[in-house]
Amino acid sequence: MTDIDHTRRRLLAGATLLGTGAALTGCGDSSPLAAAHAADTASGDHTTDVVIVGAGLAGLTAARRLTASGVRTLVVEARDRVGGRALNHPLAAPARPGTIVEVGGQWVGPTQDRVLALIAELGLETFKTWDIGDYLDYRNGQLVPYGHLFPADPLNLGLNRIPPTDPAGAAEAAVAIQQLNDMAARVPLEAPWTATDAIAWDSQTFQSWVDANLFTPGGRDLLQLAIEAVFSAQPRDLSLLHVLFYIHSAGSLDHLINTTGGAQESRIVGGSQRIALRMAEELGDRVLLNAPVTQIAYDARSVTVRGERFSVRAQRAIIAIPPTLAGRIRYSPALDGLRDQLTQRVPMGTVIKVQCVYPTPFWRDSGLNGQVTSDTGPVKITFDNSPPDAHVGVMMGFIEGEDGRRALRQSREERRQGVIDSFVRYFGEQAAEPLDYIEKNWAAEEWTRGCYAGYMPPGVWLDYGEALRAPIGRLHWAGTETAEVWNGYFDGAVRSGERAAEEVLALL
Amino acid sequence: MTDIDHTRRRLLAGATLLGTGAALTGCGDSSPLAAAHAADTASGDHTTDVVIVGAGLAGLTAARRLTASGVRTLVVEARDRVGGRALNHPLAAPARPGTIVEVGGQWVGPTQDRVLALIAELGLETFKTWDIGDYLDYRNGQLVPYGHLFPADPLNLGLNRIPPTDPAGAAEAAVAIQQLNDMAARVPLEAPWTATDAIAWDSQTFQSWVDANLFTPGGRDLLQLAIEAVFSAQPRDLSLLHVLFYIHSAGSLDHLINTTGGAQESRIVGGSQRIALRMAEELGDRVLLNAPVTQIAYDARSVTVRGERFSVRAQRAIIAIPPTLAGRIRYSPALDGLRDQLTQRVPMGTVIKVQCVYPTPFWRDSGLNGQVTSDTGPVKITFDNSPPDAHVGVMMGFIEGEDGRRALRQSREERRQGVIDSFVRYFGEQAAEPLDYIEKNWAAEEWTRGCYAGYMPPGVWLDYGEALRAPIGRLHWAGTETAEVWNGYFDGAVRSGERAAEEVLALL
Repeated sequence: MTDIDHTRRRLLAGATLLGTGAALTGCGDSSPLAAAHAADTASGDHTTDVVIVGAGLAGLTAARRLTASGVRTLVVEARDRVGGRALNHPLAAPARPGTIVEVGGQWVGPTQDRVLALIAELGLETFKTWDIGDYLDYRNGQLVPYGHLFPADPLNLGLNRIPPTDPAGAAEAAVAIQQLNDMAARVPLEAPWTATDAIAWDSQTFQSWVDANLFTPGGRDLLQLAIEAVFSAQPRDLSLLHVLFYIHSAGSLDHLINTTGGAQESRIVGGSQRIALRMAEELGDRVLLNAPVTQIAYDARSVTVRGERFSVRAQRAIIAIPPTLAGRIRYSPALDGLRDQLTQRVPMGTVIKVQCVYPTPFWRDSGLNGQVTSDTGPVKITFDNSPPDAHVGVMMGFIEGEDGRRALRQSREERRQGVIDSFVRYFGEQAAEPLDYIEKNWAAEEWTRGCYAGYMPPGVWLDYGEALRAPIGRLHWAGTETAEVWNGYFDGAVRSGERAAEEVLALL
Repeated sequence: MTDIDHTRRRLLAGATLLGTGAALTGCGDSSPLAAAHAADTASGDHTTDVVIVGAGLAGLTAARRLTASGVRTLVVEARDRVGGRALNHPLAAPARPGTIVEVGGQWVGPTQDRVLALIAELGLETFKTWDIGDYLDYRNGQLVPYGHLFPADPLNLGLNRIPPTDPAGAAEAAVAIQQLNDMAARVPLEAPWTATDAIAWDSQTFQSWVDANLFTPGGRDLLQLAIEAVFSAQPRDLSLLHVLFYIHSAGSLDHLINTTGGAQESRIVGGSQRIALRMAEELGDRVLLNAPVTQIAYDARSVTVRGERFSVRAQRAIIAIPPTLAGRIRYSPALDGLRDQLTQRVPMGTVIKVQCVYPTPFWRDSGLNGQVTSDTGPVKITFDNSPPDAHVGVMMGFIEGEDGRRALRQSREERRQGVIDSFVRYFGEQAAEPLDYIEKNWAAEEWTRGCYAGYMPPGVWLDYGEALRAPIGRLHWAGTETAEVWNGYFDGAVRSGERAAEEVLALL
């Protein structure tokens, strides 16, 4: 697809223009992805109604909603592109020109109604994640294929993504998942700190809960892997209350970990970044790229957002970036202690997303769906990430949490070797020589600083939860970390943008 | 004292000068504290050997050490004053002119050898914290005075600051303290993550340890109060491993919580900020005030530190500010993920330091030493903070952790009323009408963002500990959060500054 290129060409030029309607339409269809224009820095003094910081899904959704209501907006984005944690990467030949893989977030699934509605509105289409064939489980040095045990999962036991390699462990994990789902249902999404057991649950790590409630090594391993895969953090990093909130926010732990029926069910034709690119296209010159915000001044009458060579004056601001990045902006007057200290306490997860390209998805020939769970890193979770028509094969893996942190200071070559070793362990020697190796280390991305999302260590929800979304004067907060439903996912980002836009509309 | 004024006058003017030797000497002796000159922003392009970010005790100590070795340095400080978390506040009449109280850190104690040596070198003197008379314990609605049970503490039971009001609780707390001291001794100060039990200890909150090891409500309350008082955070916020590291870093939990014999033993004549002011005096124009750093660029040959209207080019940089503030600077190239993600994970504690001035320290007349422990907030810990000659009485209290966070969004008047209610509860109606109320909310301080120090939630030492002090190219890290000994205290700050200076000296 060339959405990226087309939009970039127009947006890079947009340094001095203001959104005044007339979104451009049409879509070019030719040139390769342009090199990044890091030297192009936004400049000029702008005036609008609502300034939005961050052109990820949250910020763009807010801008779109406000624009539809006739409100002037300007989105300022630090990077030379839109999409935030959604980023397409074009595959080299022999992949056909225009074929991409996502190096950031990529999936949508059932009950993610707002992002699914947005995808439809934007004229985009989804296709199913490859989920045909057997799973593989690598555990205690053994590689075991297994099928969907309970494809319909009639008892909602959450078993369909739990490998049965260690039957005692699998059974214990299934019971634990049910327990967690039950506890999670008792966490109010709008105010997790008001749960009856909030103090007990926010006083311990998820690891402490595992230590007290699971007794088989297999069961513990499975729970740990599930947490690493969902949060890209270790069970010890997370508040039990946060894990329960997150489960409730998604509906159930099954929703979080399953492919079919869960958050990994579908992909977007042309890549998930197209959601952002299409919105940016609609918004036209209302998006200002290469515009890192360094200061935000606000008073009773207006707000002014500043970068090194630009400023935007508006009635209100929506700050649609993760808390840890929002805390790096200098506010005038300085934000009160509760909000600032919150931003010190919502660290981003740690994940390096890796992909190897092969001539074909050869694992399918062996009846495998390409999805691995493993007790051995660096890659403990894999997916078949081939394009819809599978004209090349793409094996994707995550290096998450502790494994990810260890890999942060490795060289690319060391990481590549670790990844290939993992893939060979799961899929044999055919995996040894990929045509291409693609990696994205989100912790090193200056304008994200970790993925998938910000999370809450113990104690944060209790003492700082109320500062997560509450506006401060003319400043409003968005971003998936502020979402009640599908927090941490594209859907949560979209919902947060819609909510922030409504908040502002009611006050203009 | 007029150190402040004298130093400020010279330093405020120092925007364009470089330290090239010839520290100014002498000390003025006249004018009242000048108003802050927020509008004075440092400007100009400077060149030096070592640029130091932050004029707290760590940064100034490093500058002093480097200067003594003949190395050119320039300290850039965001505020219009030196001292960081050390700040003198002049008392109004009827206190004699020049009388101060500290609104930041104020104490030193035995084994804090480096700060004690520095104090002596700078010609400053200490005096004992008022510790004569009975303690008060307020618990379950009862106010109970008690004496030093074991003044000599021959068995090192750590009992002398543990109120005996609830004997079962006190006994259990004493045993727990001994247990913690024993565990702490097994944490290597230079690498806590290498402790034999590091994984178990860093996987749980301190609250989880209390829940598993203390069974009387009284014992739990006492441990909680000790942790709140030492960390200005809740037991649920802290990694057990971090608490153990911190205890070992100070020598024992007794050292942390005791007045006589502990970290609260002595005060500095003229106020603790004089340590910084005297160093700044020596450094003269090598300190640049009103110079918030926004960017640091570094490569194989040099480092350039920039603010809005100034730059400093040097061979190396020492960044002597807490991790959460260091993370707000923009680095070029961007810091690697491990270091950046560390800065997302070391939040500052939460404390509002409050003081009421009375015509006399009237509690002394009742045989009280002014030190309270309490189960009821907002103020649960108090100290007699009167000047050495007690010509006025000053009652000081801390609003810490959870209480502090609740108070962050109260008005000053609401906080004042809560403080006076607490003081009246402990010392009677005579406390009801102070001559003056002084408060300092460190979470709202733009260039500190919380006190006493940054702390580690679970999991941080294990996965990020190695990034705390390790230099990155030409960037070196100081600040009390990086100290092995007396981490979080003045002494740790001084040691970190000395260590960073040695690091740099070995490489110049």
